[in-house]
Amino acid sequence: MSDPPVITLTTDFGLSDPYVAAMKGAILSLNPRVVLVDVTHDVQPQRVEQGAFLLELTLPHLPQDAVHLAVVDPGVGTERRALAVEGEQGTFVGPDNGLLSAALPPDARAGLTQPRHIALPRGLTAVSLSEERFHRQPVSETFHGRDVFAPVAAHLSLGAPLSDFGPPIGEMLALPPFRAHRGEDDTLTGRVLHVDRFGNLITDVRSEDLPSLPVVEIAGRRIDAVARTYGTADALSAIVGSAGYLEIALPGGSAAAELSVEIGEPVIVRPS
Amino acid sequence: MSDPPVITLTTDFGLSDPYVAAMKGAILSLNPRVVLVDVTHDVQPQRVEQGAFLLELTLPHLPQDAVHLAVVDPGVGTERRALAVEGEQGTFVGPDNGLLSAALPPDARAGLTQPRHIALPRGLTAVSLSEERFHRQPVSETFHGRDVFAPVAAHLSLGAPLSDFGPPIGEMLALPPFRAHRGEDDTLTGRVLHVDRFGNLITDVRSEDLPSLPVVEIAGRRIDAVARTYGTADALSAIVGSAGYLEIALPGGSAAAELSVEIGEPVIVRPS
Amino acid sequence: MSDPPVITLTTDFGLSDPYVAAMKGAILSLNPRVVLVDVTHDVQPQRVEQGAFLLELTLPHLPQDAVHLAVVDPGVGTERRALAVEGEQGTFVGPDNGLLSAALPPDARAGLTQPRHIALPRGLTAVSLSEERFHRQPVSETFHGRDVFAPVAAHLSLGAPLSDFGPPIGEMLALPPFRAHRGEDDTLTGRVLHVDRFGNLITDVRSEDLPSLPVVEIAGRRIDAVARTYGTADALSAIVGSAGYLEIALPGGSAAAELSVEIGEPVIVRPS
Repeated sequence: MSDPPVITLTTDFGLSDPYVAAMKGAILSLNPRVVLVDVTHDVQPQRVEQGAFLLELTLPHLPQDAVHLAVVDPGVGTERRALAVEGEQGTFVGPDNGLLSAALPPDARAGLTQPRHIALPRGLTAVSLSEERFHRQPVSETFHGRDVFAPVAAHLSLGAPLSDFGPPIGEMLALPPFRAHRGEDDTLTGRVLHVDRFGNLITDVRSEDLPSLPVVEIAGRRIDAVARTYGTADALSAIVGSAGYLEIALPGGSAAAELSVEIGEPVIVRPS
Repeated sequence: MSDPPVITLTTDFGLSDPYVAAMKGAILSLNPRVVLVDVTHDVQPQRVEQGAFLLELTLPHLPQDAVHLAVVDPGVGTERRALAVEGEQGTFVGPDNGLLSAALPPDARAGLTQPRHIALPRGLTAVSLSEERFHRQPVSETFHGRDVFAPVAAHLSLGAPLSDFGPPIGEMLALPPFRAHRGEDDTLTGRVLHVDRFGNLITDVRSEDLPSLPVVEIAGRRIDAVARTYGTADALSAIVGSAGYLEIALPGGSAAAELSVEIGEPVIVRPS
Repeated sequence: MSDPPVITLTTDFGLSDPYVAAMKGAILSLNPRVVLVDVTHDVQPQRVEQGAFLLELTLPHLPQDAVHLAVVDPGVGTERRALAVEGEQGTFVGPDNGLLSAALPPDARAGLTQPRHIALPRGLTAVSLSEERFHRQPVSETFHGRDVFAPVAAHLSLGAPLSDFGPPIGEMLALPPFRAHRGEDDTLTGRVLHVDRFGNLITDVRSEDLPSLPVVEIAGRRIDAVARTYGTADALSAIVGSAGYLEIALPGGSAAAELSVEIGEPVIVRPS
């Protein structure tokens, strides 16, 4: 017997309301053998970039060949396209608003400074989800997660080929890479992209970009070294997190509360 | 190989405590092949009506023939009965306090203005869960979800016939339909039944009851039109949500916070 | 076909961040046939004792022979050991910081007043997880849940013998039993070990230790009787909860809010 297919879910629907249940029910009604994995449902409402970042961060740990269903969709009911994108990282299903950027290989997004439609690189195939026979009828104006994306993901998990779902498309919306900008003096200018439940600030400063003796500035504070682990740090600390991004942490406390910062807060790293 | 059975769960237990885990463990100990789907565990504590509403809302999207396990049970340990109800929508397991109203066809509840025991309509079979061999012993006075309802749901998912679990009963407690009252002047008088994580207010005003040019009044505010989608609205809006109920939304914000309202808030819709 | 293996998860990672998803993805990448059950992910950050208590409380209801993966790990990246412990209650995987105390039979912990390394009793086998071929490489300094414990749990669920994962060890860190201290005058001195979503205070006072006419004192308040159920109580109440521990509850309200208390609050029970 072959392995059961996996569908992952990334949304801003939360788990308090039955929206995620309606999506899962729609999937299981079509394919009760699928394994469902929640990436997160606590993307801040309509924060497409945060959703794209969290999916990209988690992707290396999710089963290969999974279907990745992602719905952070402020444009639902408007003219934004609905996509399925197939590549080496699996098949991605969701709105064409940048959320599916993790489907693109990193170099395809290099150089972008704004969200932009870019040509699909070799190895990636995408379709616009216009074949209505795969959608739940009638399609709600406000909940394509349940009526379009979930049933398409279920049919994909059953083995339907991508070309069944609509016409091929040549480009998709891509977000700039999640990577701090390097200035001429080797200063890295980045941002906080996520705040976790511990109050750790996850930034877009990649570990491989760090100078050998970094000094980190955030919210008027200066941190003079990058620690190795939470266990050995004992004050506001900069640390390379488990996904390879620089994090600001306060062991035993919340860096977010200590600094009163949120997603979007600038962070600067200089060589000392 | 036949499809795996599905059990859905609707409770007010939250996910922070291990209560839901104990229920799922009790189920999987008896039937490890079952597929579990959380409808929601964030019904407000002991709000039976909200739980019944959220289950009814989600039901059309859940797999047919599923077992629907629902536990919002302020009367646990008292004389309220424990039920299993089988019908076209699947099999429902939970306390006889109105929570299982979704098992009833809509016309069976028409005309009710208060919760009331009503005769089971044709096509529905119900039993009182008195057969203790299906319960976990000793049965806790405070947690029938784990000790009575979960094991019964598991045995049902294994194919045990309804009649095994106790004697047939002829009536069950039903809540009034979730449908705003129409007055003589075509005014609809309804209520907020749920507030979602976006701060949207889900009311009991059904789209098919709306006049052609509705004016909505809530919390001293007046909304002059019903929008089609969240995407195109830009102020306090009335919108027909994905389940066919009128919702009050504030795109980019929280209508609940803007209006300082909660579950139970009255809403009035008049023809303009 | 044999039953699918079960892995349970107990962490302080919350569900808002994708940490749990990374662990589940790591498991399903190795064994997509496993059934995953969340015990809780809302242990308060780094509260090892609370995590151990909640796992112990839930254990009787989880499938036997399950693998219990638990990660509340303030010492990650330091010299604390990583363990797998096999016994009658299943196989436990996590840090050697007391979190896995539920693997020990109750009498093994009797008499402890501080966390202490104790000799493994007969019937229990444990290894130190030093075999790096079972870990995800490179192992992050800050997230052994994903890189060490999850893959080990997955390999255990596939049937790998405990001895594959590292050398046997003879002792492990144990927490004192979750049981109020009995003084010479039969007074029980205990503590609040958990606060649930209803605001119920779960203490370490076991029902079998209660005097026949108990008087409960907490936060300057006195409760003169122990009720049987939530349904019949109507003021600040002491009640024996579904796991056999004394709970302080306020039906229709939150005892935690009413008393302004948290985990750790002392509670005293005297014979009246």
